[in-house]
Amino acid sequence: MRVTIYEVGPRDGLQNESVTLPVEVKREFIRRLAEAGLTTIEATSFVHPKWVPQLADAAELLADMPREPGVRYPVLVPNERGLDRALEHGVTDIAIFGSATESFAQRNLNRTLESQFEMFAPVVERALAGGMRVRAYVSMCFGDPWEGPVAPEQVVRVGRRLLDLGCYQLSLGDTIGVGTPGHVDALLDAFEVAGVGPDRLAVHFHDTYGQALANTLAALRRGITVVDASTGGIGGCPYAKSATGNLATEDLVWMLDGLGVETGVDVRSLVATSRWLADLLGRPSPSRVVQALSKEA
Amino acid sequence: MRVTIYEVGPRDGLQNESVTLPVEVKREFIRRLAEAGLTTIEATSFVHPKWVPQLADAAELLADMPREPGVRYPVLVPNERGLDRALEHGVTDIAIFGSATESFAQRNLNRTLESQFEMFAPVVERALAGGMRVRAYVSMCFGDPWEGPVAPEQVVRVGRRLLDLGCYQLSLGDTIGVGTPGHVDALLDAFEVAGVGPDRLAVHFHDTYGQALANTLAALRRGITVVDASTGGIGGCPYAKSATGNLATEDLVWMLDGLGVETGVDVRSLVATSRWLADLLGRPSPSRVVQALSKEA
Repeated sequence: MRVTIYEVGPRDGLQNESVTLPVEVKREFIRRLAEAGLTTIEATSFVHPKWVPQLADAAELLADMPREPGVRYPVLVPNERGLDRALEHGVTDIAIFGSATESFAQRNLNRTLESQFEMFAPVVERALAGGMRVRAYVSMCFGDPWEGPVAPEQVVRVGRRLLDLGCYQLSLGDTIGVGTPGHVDALLDAFEVAGVGPDRLAVHFHDTYGQALANTLAALRRGITVVDASTGGIGGCPYAKSATGNLATEDLVWMLDGLGVETGVDVRSLVATSRWLADLLGRPSPSRVVQALSKEA
Repeated sequence: MRVTIYEVGPRDGLQNESVTLPVEVKREFIRRLAEAGLTTIEATSFVHPKWVPQLADAAELLADMPREPGVRYPVLVPNERGLDRALEHGVTDIAIFGSATESFAQRNLNRTLESQFEMFAPVVERALAGGMRVRAYVSMCFGDPWEGPVAPEQVVRVGRRLLDLGCYQLSLGDTIGVGTPGHVDALLDAFEVAGVGPDRLAVHFHDTYGQALANTLAALRRGITVVDASTGGIGGCPYAKSATGNLATEDLVWMLDGLGVETGVDVRSLVATSRWLADLLGRPSPSRVVQALSKEA
């Protein structure tokens, strides 16, 4: 068995850190991630700098980013203006960021749940026409700070609309980290009933309540083979009540190595990168594997 | 479904913290754990104070410990001298601490792997004659700092001997936290082949590499219904390369609540206890749930 790790550290990780790194450090971060064996690295975002100042250098980053053969470097694109910029910079893979709930759509996208599709439709259509691959994040799939638990059927309705637009994959996000393995099963059941199999789905967990790896295990046992993670566990969600961020790539690789699942990723190389990055970000990595292997050194 | 949480904070947790708490604080800790709904609370240990000075007050603790109806308060007993003291203090449940590996038996028990059974035999025999229940820990079931990975068959050989002595349950310990879910399955498979079902087994995971909860999920799905955990995730193993200790009871309860598994335990009550204890121990709780719910307050 093989699992593809979709690395989100440079985008989802760095956009939620309080320290903004210089562009050359970001390039080095991305170079190191590819060197460690990651083959999908979300590099940055064309969200307006007013909202995400940490990634205001997206154009500059992409202009001179080290690219390895066989590695994809998707970029998050919120709208048509972002797509224009991605097209200008030769991006081949983009991701759009949808919401499973009305409350988060209004607060994060400044749109209603329904009108998000009108915003995304021309983005996906033009991206596909330009030969791009388009992934869709579905955020708040398990719970929402304003609405509480989110019904699987609601997530499926949103997800199907995004697939129908032409996205090749949905990344099911537990943006505030409240999900547990039974909820993962229920959500994957609901997608299966709707005719969407695990080959169209990825999972994206946050470790706010320590559940990210257990949730991932539940998803793997349901046939999911693409897992989002952030090297060092950097990041976090501004809407969640903890500094704990994304599932750490190192903790994921440790489990997959133990399970005999191939990833092509060298965990010790990632740990070295996370230690280097922790100094620059001014806080220790929350990853257990980074902490444990650092004591070994 | 119902899971019994075997709380090890007052013993396995506190024995590995650098701060030694006053006996009245330990009594209050134990009282609060019972108040939160825990029904099995390992209270202390009669190991020689030279080895575990943090629990040197075991006799004093037990002399005036608050006991709730329906709650068991096992005590760790290393040998016959410890058993004598447990009998003197009216203890009804004890635990012995065996090793799955030759190296750890020699270093921790100062015995060979084989001679540990000679040491335990009179302890278990006399304890049973005195009407006690005897649980056996099997440490280093997944890996050992000197020997590396431990074969499931080796663990089963040790475990069967301990059950044959008259122990009612084995607690399978990942003392240094290196196990992953596939290894859990392999170990439970090996016990099943040997005729030892999940009703005789408990699991005891450390979160050194972030795997504790995923490993627990794997065990639950194999029918295990007794899980060891430490409130606040306090403790740690002196032989492991990280300060990260036992699986945090709060992170476990969060998952079980989400799975709809009954435990009778109130997670917010435990979080309040962990916050109180963290001040006294002088370090923040490593539990993700404690961290997240503390920000909420």
